[in-house]
Amino acid sequence: MEPASLGEVSTPGRVASAGEGVGLDELALAARNHGLPLEALRYEVTPAGLHYVLVHYDIPAADEATWQLTVRGRVRTPLVLDMTALRALPAVTHRVTMECAGNGRARLSPRPVSQPWLVEAVGTADWTGVPLRAVLAEAGAEPDAVDVVFTGADHGVERGVEQDYQRSLPLPLARGADPEVLIAYAMNGLPLPPQHGYPLRLVVPGWYGMAHVKWLRDITLADAPFTGFQQVAAYRLRQTPDEPGEPVTRIAPRALMVPPGFPDFMSRTRVVRPGPVSLEGRAWSGYGRVTRVQVSADGGRTWTEAEVAPRERRAWAWQAWHCDWTATPGAHTLIARATDAEGHAQPLEQPWNRGGFANNLVQQVPVLCR
Amino acid sequence: MEPASLGEVSTPGRVASAGEGVGLDELALAARNHGLPLEALRYEVTPAGLHYVLVHYDIPAADEATWQLTVRGRVRTPLVLDMTALRALPAVTHRVTMECAGNGRARLSPRPVSQPWLVEAVGTADWTGVPLRAVLAEAGAEPDAVDVVFTGADHGVERGVEQDYQRSLPLPLARGADPEVLIAYAMNGLPLPPQHGYPLRLVVPGWYGMAHVKWLRDITLADAPFTGFQQVAAYRLRQTPDEPGEPVTRIAPRALMVPPGFPDFMSRTRVVRPGPVSLEGRAWSGYGRVTRVQVSADGGRTWTEAEVAPRERRAWAWQAWHCDWTATPGAHTLIARATDAEGHAQPLEQPWNRGGFANNLVQQVPVLCR
Repeated sequence: MEPASLGEVSTPGRVASAGEGVGLDELALAARNHGLPLEALRYEVTPAGLHYVLVHYDIPAADEATWQLTVRGRVRTPLVLDMTALRALPAVTHRVTMECAGNGRARLSPRPVSQPWLVEAVGTADWTGVPLRAVLAEAGAEPDAVDVVFTGADHGVERGVEQDYQRSLPLPLARGADPEVLIAYAMNGLPLPPQHGYPLRLVVPGWYGMAHVKWLRDITLADAPFTGFQQVAAYRLRQTPDEPGEPVTRIAPRALMVPPGFPDFMSRTRVVRPGPVSLEGRAWSGYGRVTRVQVSADGGRTWTEAEVAPRERRAWAWQAWHCDWTATPGAHTLIARATDAEGHAQPLEQPWNRGGFANNLVQQVPVLCR
Repeated sequence: MEPASLGEVSTPGRVASAGEGVGLDELALAARNHGLPLEALRYEVTPAGLHYVLVHYDIPAADEATWQLTVRGRVRTPLVLDMTALRALPAVTHRVTMECAGNGRARLSPRPVSQPWLVEAVGTADWTGVPLRAVLAEAGAEPDAVDVVFTGADHGVERGVEQDYQRSLPLPLARGADPEVLIAYAMNGLPLPPQHGYPLRLVVPGWYGMAHVKWLRDITLADAPFTGFQQVAAYRLRQTPDEPGEPVTRIAPRALMVPPGFPDFMSRTRVVRPGPVSLEGRAWSGYGRVTRVQVSADGGRTWTEAEVAPRERRAWAWQAWHCDWTATPGAHTLIARATDAEGHAQPLEQPWNRGGFANNLVQQVPVLCR
């Protein structure tokens, strides 16, 4: 065997060339990670195994009997918490819609080569755990603490850098009340499944998935902003490889539709019968409530206002929407478009960045009525 | 809008041309269906959400309060069973390893265009339900009954044919004791998840997944072999599109390895440290127990015998195996190969058929030791 270097198996990020099909490397990620089958938008709370999953490295082997969470760095009282100690603290449950920052990446042109999501990297769960602010209060932040670094137990190599998965949050957000960040140990009333971070994960309502560190084993308060790989190399909005880029943070608004009718196996094109069709779906934004969902049945030429369910205060879950459509024989393209309370609306033309992050181009659903 | 025909959205099966990358249609299937992340081979029973899933059309909306299973056709006493009636019958639990018939398809050359599995379309669960033979005994087969047709509630179009998903089993198998076919309502002690057939599915130990009809709503006994789409058009072993082909039935033997060390995010290549490495995995066959697993660390030039755990009588679950390896710096290709009690062994060269079915080429795991 010829010796090989880490650089040969862990290469820099790249963008696919024109006409380049999805590669076996992207497919290997698509086969192990998965999205929400869009018909499962029918469930307000996503059932087990249907919520999207993205695991950077391997799912670690974990045992909650021996799991420890350390809290250290710029704190007055370093802590070592086992699961019994965490469960003894007052628990809260938040219903949170989570979306992968790379959702929509595979439809970009040119296509950033990474986990190839089309549009389905989303899910909503009831997460139960301890408010992060309660644990931080117990440890006591030193006055010079500004950033909170979260370390997971998942270990791997990415773009040539060997690492445990790590991300940070600014201290004011980490100890804020809305959104209230959770150290979660249950999902929909059961212990976290292995792929969702068993036994502990962070839940950061309103933020893309990269912030919700899974298999959480350490929290370190730092006196300077964290500069780890996932904070400054990955998850940045860039047009060129060399610029520092803007950080990926909150979830941009998106509406998705339960595809009406029934599908063709291979093309996933929908087939509906002529007549009234109830169109429904969910919409969400990490910037606040969704105030408006518009639906087009003619590829974006004309729009109808959908009825949008209200969002509860301090809730960070998607809102149901519906509108009526009368299907006529022929081919149609259905589009739904969300706007949030801050006025962010989904773009009708493709935005683009090298990482394929925070892409919220409107969903297009081809339908054949016959 | 131009009218379009069903034929435009539902095209015949095809094989990718040389060098053709994976298409967005294949990717859409990969994003909604998913395999077992290979590190999850560490679990004897696959946790919720990690077992492979293949859904041909949509996951149907289902409510067990109103679900009915009809048993009719060539029977003396047609039955209509609700979930209460089924739960009142004596229940059994079988631990069963299930694998998709298309596993391995995406690595074939040329590649059949369909759900693009690499090697991970497998999982093991404890399935609880009523033996099919008990329900058939209650209905009473007429003397001329030869085939049992199972209909699911999932509806769609496939290769131009609109259909509910349907498959059949020969009557002797349907009322046999080993394997004992189940009408299952629980998976690992909980109600079936929606994507695994809630509230009812068939479980046919030892057979590829296409036989385990999900969202089961009807059982019809027939006096002639079933000729539906999934029986005679799909799931056949063919070299050319026009030959009738042989049916896909039992699972060919396969061994898979828990990939050692840790992965690179994008290439999934494994990195290990020099020194002793314990290699472990699972192996299974639908023809009987696995009697032998051989492991090669040099791409197939030399082989070591792995230790294989015994299989229990009437059990149709995978068997654990392990062997030791001493990693030396450089690049290696690890291979595991299973042989079953009937003498079927995994091929070292690629077998091929147009549907990409029952492919059990040995797994190759590239490893970099540094």
